[in-house]
Amino acid sequence: MNASIGVFDSGVGGLTVVRELMRQLPSENVIYFGDTARVPYGSKSKNTILKFSRQIVRFLRTKNVKAIVVACNTASALALEDMRDEIDIPVIGVVRPGAKMAVEKTKTKHVGVIGTEATIKSGIYTDYIRQLDEEVTVIGKACPLFCPLVEEGLLEDRITDDMIDRYLSEIKPYNVDSLVLGCTHYPLLFNPIKRYMGNGVTLINPAYETAKELKQILDEKGLLNSRSNIPSYDFYVSDGMDKFKAFADRVLPINVNTVNVIDIESY
Amino acid sequence: MNASIGVFDSGVGGLTVVRELMRQLPSENVIYFGDTARVPYGSKSKNTILKFSRQIVRFLRTKNVKAIVVACNTASALALEDMRDEIDIPVIGVVRPGAKMAVEKTKTKHVGVIGTEATIKSGIYTDYIRQLDEEVTVIGKACPLFCPLVEEGLLEDRITDDMIDRYLSEIKPYNVDSLVLGCTHYPLLFNPIKRYMGNGVTLINPAYETAKELKQILDEKGLLNSRSNIPSYDFYVSDGMDKFKAFADRVLPINVNTVNVIDIESY
Repeated sequence: MNASIGVFDSGVGGLTVVRELMRQLPSENVIYFGDTARVPYGSKSKNTILKFSRQIVRFLRTKNVKAIVVACNTASALALEDMRDEIDIPVIGVVRPGAKMAVEKTKTKHVGVIGTEATIKSGIYTDYIRQLDEEVTVIGKACPLFCPLVEEGLLEDRITDDMIDRYLSEIKPYNVDSLVLGCTHYPLLFNPIKRYMGNGVTLINPAYETAKELKQILDEKGLLNSRSNIPSYDFYVSDGMDKFKAFADRVLPINVNTVNVIDIESY
Repeated sequence: MNASIGVFDSGVGGLTVVRELMRQLPSENVIYFGDTARVPYGSKSKNTILKFSRQIVRFLRTKNVKAIVVACNTASALALEDMRDEIDIPVIGVVRPGAKMAVEKTKTKHVGVIGTEATIKSGIYTDYIRQLDEEVTVIGKACPLFCPLVEEGLLEDRITDDMIDRYLSEIKPYNVDSLVLGCTHYPLLFNPIKRYMGNGVTLINPAYETAKELKQILDEKGLLNSRSNIPSYDFYVSDGMDKFKAFADRVLPINVNTVNVIDIESY
């Protein structure tokens, strides 16, 4: 079935999930929406995230997508469960796959989770992880400055290292051996976080497991694209800053030529 | 005339302008709107800022305000001129008053301006300053990390000092003697910025001059509140995070008991 997979995020970060879909599902067409007019979500309330997410799902449905990936951790954490019953196509978030991977990887049974304020406050990673293995201790820490630092391009920078030290020093003493990068921006800080946490700690990017689970679901439901065309990737945003293309060019293995600006509030 | 003054901002920062109105116009009623669901504005495009600002003006008009203060530098820079003809009550932004004050203060004729990416990119401070005195050289610098640092509460912090050094080292060599704090969050960094720039540099908070100009305009138009009641202050936001009240309690000399959440997209 050659209908597209819809992917959405609060902004540009979800492109790290698209990158993973391109790798694991190279025949699938993708429609991406980034809510660049209302980004970020991570400091906002559940009501607002839910309202925004519903608008975006309505928009993606107009494109007849066959499945939806909530690439944004905050929207996955705060809106996904409430929306699931409203949607009759497969919807997958990044939190549950991320939690699953953390449980598979940990041997010390101590898992760290970093994310936005809203994601960490929701406690959802802890809930999912402990549903899978109630012996696991989860140490969560909100890192609100990581997104602005990534968006400023300070990926290898003393100030970023300083901030990593500040936030992660609260996790390090707990003997964690898996750390979930619970925000789509954080994989871009993989190297400095790895340096700080050391080789004994596995950094978990939920995007990998999300793409894997999606592939399995599409396969089970007979929804995989059987045509062997070159896939299409369409990008939509709510605010047309040049930044999106710059970020896309950094993250994706393709050139993004066209980015369509839509009025998401009208959906 | 006891109708309220409407004040709006992208979020909480505009409360530093409300604080100044309370000082200089202590008899006036104020209705404040903070667009906390869509904050920040400083990294977004003119079209989006203009659309958001128009919605907010429509909301404030339903409250029968007698004048509107655009407390947000980014909205003042990108939306005010386009909206002015659409509104038949006095509308005042913070950019022109800030520019005026900078020109009055400078002796070296070298003025620095710091603000969001959108404000600096618009070049509007430079335009206004040079309209007033074309001999003045303006050095602008966007400081996108200052807002997240302030919202994280890192007002006196090594990382903030580091970031100030990083951004302002590009302004310091230019012999500026006035520096416009062109974003409502920046007055909260007054002390560390002052330390870095030194006593020879006057830091300009446009809020002061804005309140002064507003007072003059209301007086000229016979719109000052002649009643001597205790003034009322009403606060509206588009997202009901607890942060707003916390920030308000830090900035304002009154206790904010009620914050009303409205659906700004419906205006």
